[in-house]
Amino acid sequence: MPKFGINMVYIAILGHGVVGSGVVEVMLHNADNINSRVKEEIFIKHILDLRSFPESPLASRFTTDFENIINDSEIRIVVEVMGGVHPAYDFVKRCLLAGKSVVTSNKELVAVKGAELIRVASENNVNFLFEASVGGGIPILRPLSQCLAANRVSEIAGILNGTTNFILTKMIKEQVSFEDALAEAQSLGYAERDPAADVDGHDACRKICILAALAFGKHVYPEAVYTQGIRSVKLEDVAYAENWGGVIKLIGLVREVENGKLQICVAPMLVSRESQIASVDGVFNGIKVNGDATGEIVFYGRGAGKLPTASAVVADIIDCVKHLSARKYLFWEDCDGSNIESYSKDVTGMYFRFKGDKAKILADAEERFGELKLLSRKGASEDEIAFVTTPHTIEELESFKAEQINQGAELLGSIRLLA
Amino acid sequence: MPKFGINMVYIAILGHGVVGSGVVEVMLHNADNINSRVKEEIFIKHILDLRSFPESPLASRFTTDFENIINDSEIRIVVEVMGGVHPAYDFVKRCLLAGKSVVTSNKELVAVKGAELIRVASENNVNFLFEASVGGGIPILRPLSQCLAANRVSEIAGILNGTTNFILTKMIKEQVSFEDALAEAQSLGYAERDPAADVDGHDACRKICILAALAFGKHVYPEAVYTQGIRSVKLEDVAYAENWGGVIKLIGLVREVENGKLQICVAPMLVSRESQIASVDGVFNGIKVNGDATGEIVFYGRGAGKLPTASAVVADIIDCVKHLSARKYLFWEDCDGSNIESYSKDVTGMYFRFKGDKAKILADAEERFGELKLLSRKGASEDEIAFVTTPHTIEELESFKAEQINQGAELLGSIRLLA
Repeated sequence: MPKFGINMVYIAILGHGVVGSGVVEVMLHNADNINSRVKEEIFIKHILDLRSFPESPLASRFTTDFENIINDSEIRIVVEVMGGVHPAYDFVKRCLLAGKSVVTSNKELVAVKGAELIRVASENNVNFLFEASVGGGIPILRPLSQCLAANRVSEIAGILNGTTNFILTKMIKEQVSFEDALAEAQSLGYAERDPAADVDGHDACRKICILAALAFGKHVYPEAVYTQGIRSVKLEDVAYAENWGGVIKLIGLVREVENGKLQICVAPMLVSRESQIASVDGVFNGIKVNGDATGEIVFYGRGAGKLPTASAVVADIIDCVKHLSARKYLFWEDCDGSNIESYSKDVTGMYFRFKGDKAKILADAEERFGELKLLSRKGASEDEIAFVTTPHTIEELESFKAEQINQGAELLGSIRLLA
Repeated sequence: MPKFGINMVYIAILGHGVVGSGVVEVMLHNADNINSRVKEEIFIKHILDLRSFPESPLASRFTTDFENIINDSEIRIVVEVMGGVHPAYDFVKRCLLAGKSVVTSNKELVAVKGAELIRVASENNVNFLFEASVGGGIPILRPLSQCLAANRVSEIAGILNGTTNFILTKMIKEQVSFEDALAEAQSLGYAERDPAADVDGHDACRKICILAALAFGKHVYPEAVYTQGIRSVKLEDVAYAENWGGVIKLIGLVREVENGKLQICVAPMLVSRESQIASVDGVFNGIKVNGDATGEIVFYGRGAGKLPTASAVVADIIDCVKHLSARKYLFWEDCDGSNIESYSKDVTGMYFRFKGDKAKILADAEERFGELKLLSRKGASEDEIAFVTTPHTIEELESFKAEQINQGAELLGSIRLLA
């Protein structure tokens, strides 16, 4: 129960799933520390969920009706941890319009509706914070915003999805096939029964969109981003990557190119062992930010999970309480996609693996790309060839690929380089 | 010149050395971006330096007299980038007492006088910010403060000094001796002619003191911290570390132990290749923070240098301008050292290298420590033995060392493990 004589800040939580119950746990566990930090008492007044939780210490505060929250003028901060765009979007927007600040962990909501919700928050002089939407427990959006103050960011490259990184790490370290590694991730609860959002790159795509928007000031919609998952990565490719001197990682990448537009994509990439990103293994995330003054900075930690994500949400709640009357500056503008460069114009080195007339493929490749780095692996069949090209546009690289397939070669794999 | 019609925030900079000139460069280079962020115009009105800089675009703003700054009531923020405790301490304290916020990059000042200056800042309702004092351009203090909001930090372990990390990396990757690697660091400008502050661990000590104070809430004075540099690390030790499965790094370490006290030290340590810290090479820094909710988080980047450090200073300036009327919460209390546990009670595995009666040394060690991990290297003489013990107190480990030396063995090396 609230203590008398102390300022109360009443909050509500939308959703009592993994993250929502984690938020309650962190708030109750660290109540003294949190309240002394904000010099007020934060009181969870309502929790919205269709289910009931009679065992919860806050059992009496559950409601199934959002109207009880939106109409409660005492509620200053609403925490949205339901996930998905609907009904989260409507709930969040109504809260902001009603003058309530919102904290969310919902990357899909921010990636799809962020620009609008930021604008609505600004117009209503409340905060809309979403640190937990990228990198789970890793502080990234606030430090990035701080870096940006005195830096021009040129590039962000990150391992943004723990599930795919777990799978790739299994493939790299234990030579487990994609299918078996996915099954293990599912049995451990790291992957959903329908793993598409993770393994097809959509989750990483939402996160790189949010990072790109924050770093470069304009919203990037996920559908504008070239997105490729890891289903086609084979153990043979892993072996060739090792021979090349690196590992295969699913990377979300955004960089500003000379014409001021953004190259942005999600794809498996060959990452050199020299890179700090190469040693980010298992369910961990790693995000590399290059700024003109700071140089390279890397943030590393657990990108998902109940308590890491909840801790980021709670940090945002505290920030909201401290800034009830002052707006925080996490800001970008809406944009129609005209700031995104065509993926075909991206320039990168490419790894190719073919089956066919090796001499002919090699001669064609050398004619197009100049010097190649030939790769080898144990147990390759006589007619398999693998190599890495010098940097060329995706357009040129795709044209070569099509040409070789046309001429009867079988494409076994192609993966771009992170460079 | 100031533009009319825009709010001006006047600042002064104490010192125009490497960092000070970097601050001016970043401020001028990013003026539009910075001013739009703070929605005011930041105007560098005075720069204090005994030298004159006729070529500087701000040549007319230099002064040699601190009184011109302290007596200028228009100055709201003073940036101290002189280094050293005196006269920086007197200048900073007078500024805070005069109601001016202070931003500093001076780790020695913060490590020695932090608790007092934080208190004075608090009493005068101004800010005292020092992000650049640890980790150069890596955002660490603010993210740590954010992590702390919802976490109990259990341990911080960091590579906090770029010069020693450059030297150790040369020793590990190129088998260059300590002396030659130091000479190269000096010729490249990474090490001072008198390298004591770096190679004897004092610089790393100041930084772990600041991190410990922020994480655990009480000031830690550098003289209370067991501090050992890297002068005694030999290429033979590097080879044994490799055989063990790791690398030697100079680590600043602080952890809370069961009695609530802090174990804190700076020492070379064997770091497993599995650790994210092991791959932090060259002049880079890496700081690992363990929190109960977030788990392990690592921050990586350039820990020193003109522009990285300046960018952290400028981020603090911007934060000060945004919070001219609200205090930021970077806070700890003074403490008499009673919160520091004796180093002799620290528990760790230890690597030993002896010359002498191998069978006798081994039997004695096994009797004391149980199972040992024996190590080997190419070219070791017949009477050289190296091994790693299970975790024991420093007291027990030192007692064994003294016993062996007493019995005629020659101690060639001993390095603790980071675990």
